[in-house]
Amino acid sequence: MKKEIRIGLIGYGFMGRTHSNAYSQLSHFFDTTHVPVRQAVCGRDEQKVKAFAEKWGYASYETDWRKLVAREDIDAVDICTPNDSHAEIALECIKHGKMILCEKPLALNGEQGEAMVKAVEASGLPNLVWYNYRFLPAVTLAKNIVDAGELGRVFHYRANFLQDWTISEELPQGGAGLWRLDAAAAGSGVTGDLLAHCIDTARWINGDIVSVSAMTETFIKERVHTATGEKQAVTIDDACAFLARFENGSLAIFESTRYARGHKALYTFEINGEKKSLAWDLHDLNYLSYFDHGVPGDRRGWTNIHTTDGDHPYSGNWWVPGLCLGYEHSFTHELAEFFKDLDSPQKEKRYPDFRHALGTQYVCDAVLESARTKQWVDVKKA
Amino acid sequence: MKKEIRIGLIGYGFMGRTHSNAYSQLSHFFDTTHVPVRQAVCGRDEQKVKAFAEKWGYASYETDWRKLVAREDIDAVDICTPNDSHAEIALECIKHGKMILCEKPLALNGEQGEAMVKAVEASGLPNLVWYNYRFLPAVTLAKNIVDAGELGRVFHYRANFLQDWTISEELPQGGAGLWRLDAAAAGSGVTGDLLAHCIDTARWINGDIVSVSAMTETFIKERVHTATGEKQAVTIDDACAFLARFENGSLAIFESTRYARGHKALYTFEINGEKKSLAWDLHDLNYLSYFDHGVPGDRRGWTNIHTTDGDHPYSGNWWVPGLCLGYEHSFTHELAEFFKDLDSPQKEKRYPDFRHALGTQYVCDAVLESARTKQWVDVKKA
Amino acid sequence: MKKEIRIGLIGYGFMGRTHSNAYSQLSHFFDTTHVPVRQAVCGRDEQKVKAFAEKWGYASYETDWRKLVAREDIDAVDICTPNDSHAEIALECIKHGKMILCEKPLALNGEQGEAMVKAVEASGLPNLVWYNYRFLPAVTLAKNIVDAGELGRVFHYRANFLQDWTISEELPQGGAGLWRLDAAAAGSGVTGDLLAHCIDTARWINGDIVSVSAMTETFIKERVHTATGEKQAVTIDDACAFLARFENGSLAIFESTRYARGHKALYTFEINGEKKSLAWDLHDLNYLSYFDHGVPGDRRGWTNIHTTDGDHPYSGNWWVPGLCLGYEHSFTHELAEFFKDLDSPQKEKRYPDFRHALGTQYVCDAVLESARTKQWVDVKKA
Amino acid sequence: MKKEIRIGLIGYGFMGRTHSNAYSQLSHFFDTTHVPVRQAVCGRDEQKVKAFAEKWGYASYETDWRKLVAREDIDAVDICTPNDSHAEIALECIKHGKMILCEKPLALNGEQGEAMVKAVEASGLPNLVWYNYRFLPAVTLAKNIVDAGELGRVFHYRANFLQDWTISEELPQGGAGLWRLDAAAAGSGVTGDLLAHCIDTARWINGDIVSVSAMTETFIKERVHTATGEKQAVTIDDACAFLARFENGSLAIFESTRYARGHKALYTFEINGEKKSLAWDLHDLNYLSYFDHGVPGDRRGWTNIHTTDGDHPYSGNWWVPGLCLGYEHSFTHELAEFFKDLDSPQKEKRYPDFRHALGTQYVCDAVLESARTKQWVDVKKA
Repeated sequence: MKKEIRIGLIGYGFMGRTHSNAYSQLSHFFDTTHVPVRQAVCGRDEQKVKAFAEKWGYASYETDWRKLVAREDIDAVDICTPNDSHAEIALECIKHGKMILCEKPLALNGEQGEAMVKAVEASGLPNLVWYNYRFLPAVTLAKNIVDAGELGRVFHYRANFLQDWTISEELPQGGAGLWRLDAAAAGSGVTGDLLAHCIDTARWINGDIVSVSAMTETFIKERVHTATGEKQAVTIDDACAFLARFENGSLAIFESTRYARGHKALYTFEINGEKKSLAWDLHDLNYLSYFDHGVPGDRRGWTNIHTTDGDHPYSGNWWVPGLCLGYEHSFTHELAEFFKDLDSPQKEKRYPDFRHALGTQYVCDAVLESARTKQWVDVKKA
Repeated sequence: MKKEIRIGLIGYGFMGRTHSNAYSQLSHFFDTTHVPVRQAVCGRDEQKVKAFAEKWGYASYETDWRKLVAREDIDAVDICTPNDSHAEIALECIKHGKMILCEKPLALNGEQGEAMVKAVEASGLPNLVWYNYRFLPAVTLAKNIVDAGELGRVFHYRANFLQDWTISEELPQGGAGLWRLDAAAAGSGVTGDLLAHCIDTARWINGDIVSVSAMTETFIKERVHTATGEKQAVTIDDACAFLARFENGSLAIFESTRYARGHKALYTFEINGEKKSLAWDLHDLNYLSYFDHGVPGDRRGWTNIHTTDGDHPYSGNWWVPGLCLGYEHSFTHELAEFFKDLDSPQKEKRYPDFRHALGTQYVCDAVLESARTKQWVDVKKA
Repeated sequence: MKKEIRIGLIGYGFMGRTHSNAYSQLSHFFDTTHVPVRQAVCGRDEQKVKAFAEKWGYASYETDWRKLVAREDIDAVDICTPNDSHAEIALECIKHGKMILCEKPLALNGEQGEAMVKAVEASGLPNLVWYNYRFLPAVTLAKNIVDAGELGRVFHYRANFLQDWTISEELPQGGAGLWRLDAAAAGSGVTGDLLAHCIDTARWINGDIVSVSAMTETFIKERVHTATGEKQAVTIDDACAFLARFENGSLAIFESTRYARGHKALYTFEINGEKKSLAWDLHDLNYLSYFDHGVPGDRRGWTNIHTTDGDHPYSGNWWVPGLCLGYEHSFTHELAEFFKDLDSPQKEKRYPDFRHALGTQYVCDAVLESARTKQWVDVKKA
Repeated sequence: MKKEIRIGLIGYGFMGRTHSNAYSQLSHFFDTTHVPVRQAVCGRDEQKVKAFAEKWGYASYETDWRKLVAREDIDAVDICTPNDSHAEIALECIKHGKMILCEKPLALNGEQGEAMVKAVEASGLPNLVWYNYRFLPAVTLAKNIVDAGELGRVFHYRANFLQDWTISEELPQGGAGLWRLDAAAAGSGVTGDLLAHCIDTARWINGDIVSVSAMTETFIKERVHTATGEKQAVTIDDACAFLARFENGSLAIFESTRYARGHKALYTFEINGEKKSLAWDLHDLNYLSYFDHGVPGDRRGWTNIHTTDGDHPYSGNWWVPGLCLGYEHSFTHELAEFFKDLDSPQKEKRYPDFRHALGTQYVCDAVLESARTKQWVDVKKA
């Protein structure tokens, strides 16, 4: 008999849709003991939230998130609101004994994150942060290869997250869909939005980052704010790049921007070890690039592994070899891992919990501080 | 108010899953006036069909397809059985006034197909064949570019569908999942299974094929049949290649095989016009390769269009630019077109109906005849 | 002490330049016992041939090829004239006891070729045909892998040679640089010019072709002839595609055209074996694509081998790993093989001699006959 | 009448070969008024230098570089020795009134470089540094596109030069071919050897770099020195990465290493402007990746320009469209630009002269200082 986890979703924007899709798809493709029930969704605009509930099959809706959190028929709360409300909502969830699935980044900063980690760990409630990219088959395969020690000593890591959607000066800041340009709501610009993904994957695969030297830039200095209709200073980082050193002695460069003309959402990473190297990019997400120095010299090269076979992570649950998965499958896979862990909790989670996400938050904080101070900054340990 | 179309699905294998996924996903991403209701699924093994119904949310199940077809609470029947039963089931559906969504190929051969077309057109019932690849954004974009006349005179078309899953001599023929190796159930080998896809797309994009010269080969001459446990002659075509001439004067080569080591499901096509060329492959399904001779000479080259923007076909219904769609999305798109057409039927359907699929069947028949006779064969016109 | 081979070059067009480059470069990069001496070049236009001799360091020039062939200070004649004169010149060379390096294709047809082979073999003179693409490191590596039996049973071979330079109707036929559009001078269109390359490589790597079914097309029916200034019927094949069966039981498709918009000189081939597959294309000539089914399932994929290491064929003679070679290096490599063979003649030559090129000519003849008769045609054995 | 420039080459290693190839090839492909004469080559090992002279057609040889520099029949000296002797030899050349073609980097450091620039500019002698990569067709095309202002405001630049040849601990330092691992001879490790190339291209295309923050690492701390046979501390940088800001306000990341398993000589750069972006890599050197935001939204993508047409820089001097050039062609092109400039000297040289190379040296110095001090360092202006 399946155990139902009744989900209350707060926020129904882009991320609300990706998470709802995971709740809808999970049971069609994964045999988990726990299954999600779309119990309620919450948003401030009644008409819109009602329409969303109908479209996605939520049994009910709320317009006040505190009501949703307090409902007895909710087992887990999914926080999909802008970053500035994560901490408050999460702490309230913990008070009401709800498990939490929180959109990334964990919080506005490490301080908020610490409070969240402290509370959630004291409560013993299961908790997850939606760093979804880990769960694409190619990325998980990379993790498995590294964990098996196949790379030997690691020398280099590099990651980019390049976009180009904010180049126009006409684009306003703030408001629905554009709160990511407003530091008050987002905490930071590309650092928390995009680099946080790169950092999560990097720490998962290659361990902790110990120090960073960063630079940030705001290319468009003023934009109309949708709340006021006035031109206001842009306070987010439009671009951020940093040098880093990992605990394992490897060097890294990270870069993110929304001003790299030609790239829509080009998240790439590469890791170079003594024996093997791996590379991946989000625009071709079904492929893992794999270099094995162990093969004979004249046969060496980068192999494009199309990770759609039954023996690739998660892929066997879907179709047949050669048939591509898409972006949204990553959320379904993360949910599958979360539910699998509910059954038999592991000390080392496959999914990012609050504590792991706090470590990522600390890196973001160090990056922003380094950009401000123009100094190398040591990263706090989560 | 949405109009419900109550679906009865016959067969719950690989294709049963892809179609069910479309029924589940459609309303989450497309605003169609008609919406599918998963009313019933049918299969011979009660335990399995029941489990499938539960997993995919079908309200009921049947073990006799004639019962399902006769049910009054069914508006549309989806035929996902092996090819040898398509004609019989479809004719029964027509008798009961059900619209039909039939898995490809339409039938075992043109003769069966003609009977189906005749009956369904006499009935006036909406009818569709699941040639799903048309509906990937990159393929639809290709169609739109060609239809706009941007290529000018077309000189060449080429398409491959390459797989490698039957190379082992140990693989049996017949039975669940392996009926595709049994000519009695499948009608033919790669011709009906894989080339039919290539031909559907080609005819959709480049018009009718008028004559063909083909060769086929059966590389492994005998395989154990799962029904008898005995080694039996393999009667399907393991590989098939053919030369073709289109009505518009362009030349084509087509090839398909399950013996191309290294290719899982590499469906590729390319079309070369006077002014532009287009190419695509299923392993990188989000990209369309696009060559425009009209740009200045030193800037010409093949452009990789990542068809994930809001202005690409279907993509705006899903996520944001740069985020990949997967294989199964094609079925959802085909269903969306079918339902859109229910509202305001067009003379020229975006989706392949029985008549269009009959034309494809005629090409397959001509190809197999040419391989047999070693002569060029003219293709019958649908 | 190096043995000098005094070269007499007839023709100084595009191929005259590529061969002269090989004569100039050989000793800089290869330690062969025999070395070429640029002794004389021959062309009908005295001013132009003199300028060519100066530019490329030929010690003398002639305007009558019979004079050059008769000169006692010439050891080897390089025939770079249009195809219709190959046979006549070669037979004259043999009379004068000159070894011959003949531009491809060997002759206008098999009949001419047979006479050439008969004469040259009776004379015992070394003879070579400039099918240069064999000698690119990636292509030679492919040959070595196949010869080592690593592919197992071969199922498929496919090759294309796609160009787009004759699409304009304004392009005339005949005359310098355009004799390739004139069947009288060229013998055929793409079949002898481009497919001959594909066929040479295919036969070298995969053995003899036994039968073919072909189609050809002349898309532009009339072009101004530069000799007359008048519009004349175009008698070459603008495009040619054919199905083929190899002696080893594998199937093949070949295609060539000068109407594939977007492709400048895209020669590609792929061979699929039971255990391994290989693919290559001329636009990325330093890479060999390599698929090895023997690696563990989750690591399988196409490997891009950048064939620029010291242990790749020929590459160690040039620079250091990672540094690309270009098109013209193939001629230098072919020359190196020819000179190496002068020292210690092998029964099986690494380079194509007249007899091997005759076999290729027979395939071309069969292809053209099949296109004419619309029948499968058996290929004569060389 | 061609004017002869009699070359004296000092050093005959890898770079001696690439330069000699340029001297040999230039007149075959470029019509320059000045032409090189291979007059003399100099090396300490008489037998080896004599063999080199014979192989490459140098009329004479020397074993003492001061003699060569003093010879009256030498017009230009080409310095191909390790970095620690560039300054001394160059200053001597200037004393003797020889024009200089100096291998990169210009010197061990900015101080040496300043003396060289001062002396050479006072003398008025033509001078060049062999930053050859600029002269590959794709790189020059990139420069031309940027110079035409097509990118609009530039936001980002990134460049890597990744190798993997020093990962083995067994590799010694010092001696022939390995002086690049010895800081005494090389000045630095990857910074002067590889990043210097990246910096030269970046400054040429995107203008001056004003400040940097760098990190370096020496992964293998000790290696046997070939001079002593003893294990000694490795004093070069095995890897170096830095953040940079350009004068034009754009941000950059640069990275180089000899520990990136899988990359032989992967020099890549990318520049992102408001309207267009460009990218290139040395492993596929004939391609320029080009993104033009100006095309309609649904047709946008990265275009792979195969820069082998007659209207691409330098390519028309070689073969026909589609036929690849190789690495060594870059040196021939640089030489062509140098000789063209001798005829009609331009204020802004297409090739890097000593002053431009000094600017690159200053960036290297700042990078190494930043890595030492862990501070952002301002770059001195050349």
